[in-house]
Amino acid sequence: MTNPILTLSPRIRATPFSRRVEIAGPKAYTVYNHMRLASFFESVEADYHHLKNHVQVWDVACERQIEVRGRDATRLVQMLTPRDLRKLSIGQCFYVPIVDETGGMLNDPVLLKLADDRYWISIADSDLLYWVKGLAYGLHWEVDVIEPDVSPLAVQGPKADDLMARVFGEEVRQIRFFRFAPFEFDGHVFNVARSGYSKQGGFEIYMDDWALGERLWDRLMEAGQDLNVRVGAPNVIERIEGGLLSYGSDMTRRNTPHECGLGRFCDTFNAIGCIGRDALLRVASEGPVRQIRGLAIEGDAVPPCGVPWPIHGDEDGEDEIVGRVTSAFWSPDLKTNVSIGMVRMTHWKPGTRVWVELPDGARDATVRALPFI
Amino acid sequence: MTNPILTLSPRIRATPFSRRVEIAGPKAYTVYNHMRLASFFESVEADYHHLKNHVQVWDVACERQIEVRGRDATRLVQMLTPRDLRKLSIGQCFYVPIVDETGGMLNDPVLLKLADDRYWISIADSDLLYWVKGLAYGLHWEVDVIEPDVSPLAVQGPKADDLMARVFGEEVRQIRFFRFAPFEFDGHVFNVARSGYSKQGGFEIYMDDWALGERLWDRLMEAGQDLNVRVGAPNVIERIEGGLLSYGSDMTRRNTPHECGLGRFCDTFNAIGCIGRDALLRVASEGPVRQIRGLAIEGDAVPPCGVPWPIHGDEDGEDEIVGRVTSAFWSPDLKTNVSIGMVRMTHWKPGTRVWVELPDGARDATVRALPFI
Repeated sequence: MTNPILTLSPRIRATPFSRRVEIAGPKAYTVYNHMRLASFFESVEADYHHLKNHVQVWDVACERQIEVRGRDATRLVQMLTPRDLRKLSIGQCFYVPIVDETGGMLNDPVLLKLADDRYWISIADSDLLYWVKGLAYGLHWEVDVIEPDVSPLAVQGPKADDLMARVFGEEVRQIRFFRFAPFEFDGHVFNVARSGYSKQGGFEIYMDDWALGERLWDRLMEAGQDLNVRVGAPNVIERIEGGLLSYGSDMTRRNTPHECGLGRFCDTFNAIGCIGRDALLRVASEGPVRQIRGLAIEGDAVPPCGVPWPIHGDEDGEDEIVGRVTSAFWSPDLKTNVSIGMVRMTHWKPGTRVWVELPDGARDATVRALPFI
Repeated sequence: MTNPILTLSPRIRATPFSRRVEIAGPKAYTVYNHMRLASFFESVEADYHHLKNHVQVWDVACERQIEVRGRDATRLVQMLTPRDLRKLSIGQCFYVPIVDETGGMLNDPVLLKLADDRYWISIADSDLLYWVKGLAYGLHWEVDVIEPDVSPLAVQGPKADDLMARVFGEEVRQIRFFRFAPFEFDGHVFNVARSGYSKQGGFEIYMDDWALGERLWDRLMEAGQDLNVRVGAPNVIERIEGGLLSYGSDMTRRNTPHECGLGRFCDTFNAIGCIGRDALLRVASEGPVRQIRGLAIEGDAVPPCGVPWPIHGDEDGEDEIVGRVTSAFWSPDLKTNVSIGMVRMTHWKPGTRVWVELPDGARDATVRALPFI
C-alpha cells in the first residue's frame, strides 16, 4: 500500500514547534500520542546520512510527559515498572519497561527523577497517563498525576554538543549519558538531558512553556548554520541499525519485556510491589519462547512496512510462521535491508536462514543480533 | 497547511477490513485509536450526498472495545460515568461521558450491557483501556478488563435497513434505536446494534472474529449492489450538521460534560460512586462558563480545520478570544460553512454575531444551536 494522505484535525494535535516544522517542508508525517510527528524531510536516506554526520533539531513534543508528584510518588513509579528504581538518583533518566498485571508491555518510556517526590515519565505511543491516573485513583494514594506543558525538543547528531554549547553554554557538554540538569534560556530554566531516539549522541530539551517554543527553535537553527544544522526527525533506518524499538510496532501489550530484549532492564525480584511481578518472575525463570531480533533481508530496497510481514522457517519446505517483521528499511551504510522482528526460539539464533513474506513476494533473510551497528 | 502524507507502520494498525477499504481507494486517512480510519472516498461532498440518499459500509474497527466482566463489573462501569446506569438493560446501549476525578472528559464511548456481569465499552479516540485497567488493579476488584477481538462495521444511510435485512434477515428491522441483539452470520453470531456515528440511521455490527471480516464485508457489498451501496466513512459535514462531537477535537480532558452539551447524559446525583462526582455536582449547580455550539461561518468553503481557530467577539472592536472552532466544513445542503466550537457564556446565545480567525483571514459567523439539522 502506498502511503496515503493524512487528514489533519485538532484531534491530531499541533505542537509548539509545528509552524516551524511545516516551513521546513516534511515529506510525510505520522501520528504519535495524538500529535503530529514528521517522518522525514529531504528523503529518509538523505536525512539518515545528514544525521550521522551533522546535527538535527527534532520536534518530539509527541513524547508527552506524565508528572507524578506527592508523598507516594516514588512508591507509585516503582509500582509501574519491574526495573529497580532504588538506584535512580535525582537528575538521572532510566529507560523503564511498563507492564500490566500479566507482564504485557504498556509503554517503554524514559523516567526522569526531578526530586524525591517528583518524576516525569517521557512516554512512547500510548495514553499511559490513563494507566497511572487510574492506579492512583484506585489506590487512594497521596499523589497527583498530570500531563504538564512540557514538549521535548531533540538535538541529535555528532555535532549536537557544539550546537548546544552555543545556545546553553559550555557546561552542557558535561551532562553525562541519561543524566539531566537545569539550563537557562532567556531567563527561563529548562531541564536538558543527554538522551534521544538515535545512536548518534545528543540531547533532549524539556521545553516547558508552550510560548517559548519558536524562540528556542529559532535560536538553535541560527546558532547551527555553519554546523549545517537541519530540521530532522527520528530516522527509521538509523534507529533500526541501532536496535531502538518502536512501541506499537515492534512490541505491543502481547509482549513481555523479555521478549522485547528488555530483560536487562528488569530486576523484578528486587522491584518489590511492581505490577506484573508474579508473571515476570515466571517468565524470567523460564525465558521467553520468542524474542526480538534483527533480520537482514536480501534483495533490493524493501517497500514500506505498513503491516507485519510473516517470517517463515525454511526447513523441509514447511510453511510455518516463525515470527513477524515489524520495521524494515534499506540501509545505505550496511548495503542490505535492515529490519526488526519477533522470532520464535527455534529460529532466533543469529545466522539462521529464514524467508520473509513481503506484499510483493518472498525474500530470503538472515537472523541477526541487535543492534546491527 | 495542506494535508500531508501519512507514513504507515504496524503501530498504525490495520483492521480486519483494511484490504477491502484499500481496494475502494480512500483519498485520505486519519489515525484513530492507533488504527487506520478512512476519511473519504470520492470526495467529502460526494460521500455526504451518497450517505444521505443510499447506504454505506464503514470500517470503524477503530472503535475498539473494552470488555469488563466479573462480579464487580456493574460497580466498575458505574464508577466510570456520571450517567445513572441503573436504567441500562441487557441488550441496550448508552452513550456515556467518562470523566476523571476533576470532571474532565476522558472519552465519550457507547456502553453495551451484554449480561448482568459483562459489558463492552465502544470507545472514542483515547486509550480508555488503560484507565479502566488501572482502576480495576488499584481497587483490587473482582473484574477482568480486556480488549477483545471485536471490530465494529457500520452500515449507515436511509437504505441501511434494506441492506441489513438481506444479510441478517428481516428480524434486523425490529432492533430499536440504541438496542442490540445477536444475529447469525454463516453459523457465527454477532451482536448487531441500531447505532452509528451519523444521523442517517443504521447499524453497527460488532464483528468479533478477525478472520470473518472480509467475508462479512463482501456479503454486504454484494447484497447491496442494486441499493447503490458504497464504501464510506464517518462524514465530517454530516456529523457537524447533526451535532455529533469528535473527542480530541471538539472536547478534551479540559472540558466537563456540561461544557460539551452532554449535561443531559449526567445524572450525577444518582450516579453514586462515580468518579468526578464532587466536581460535577459543583458544575451542575453553577453551570458551565463555556459550552459547545454550532457556528455558521460566512463566505466560501473554509479550508480544512487542522488547528483550533480563535473566535472573537465583535463588541467595541475588542480583540478578546471568546472561544475556538474545532470542526468546520462547507455544507452543500445548508449552503454555509457549518462548524462546531466551544463558546464563552458571553457569546453563546444563538444568533450572536462573532468573527473567526482562519489561517487565511477573518470571517464573520453566527452562533447556532446544535444540531444544525
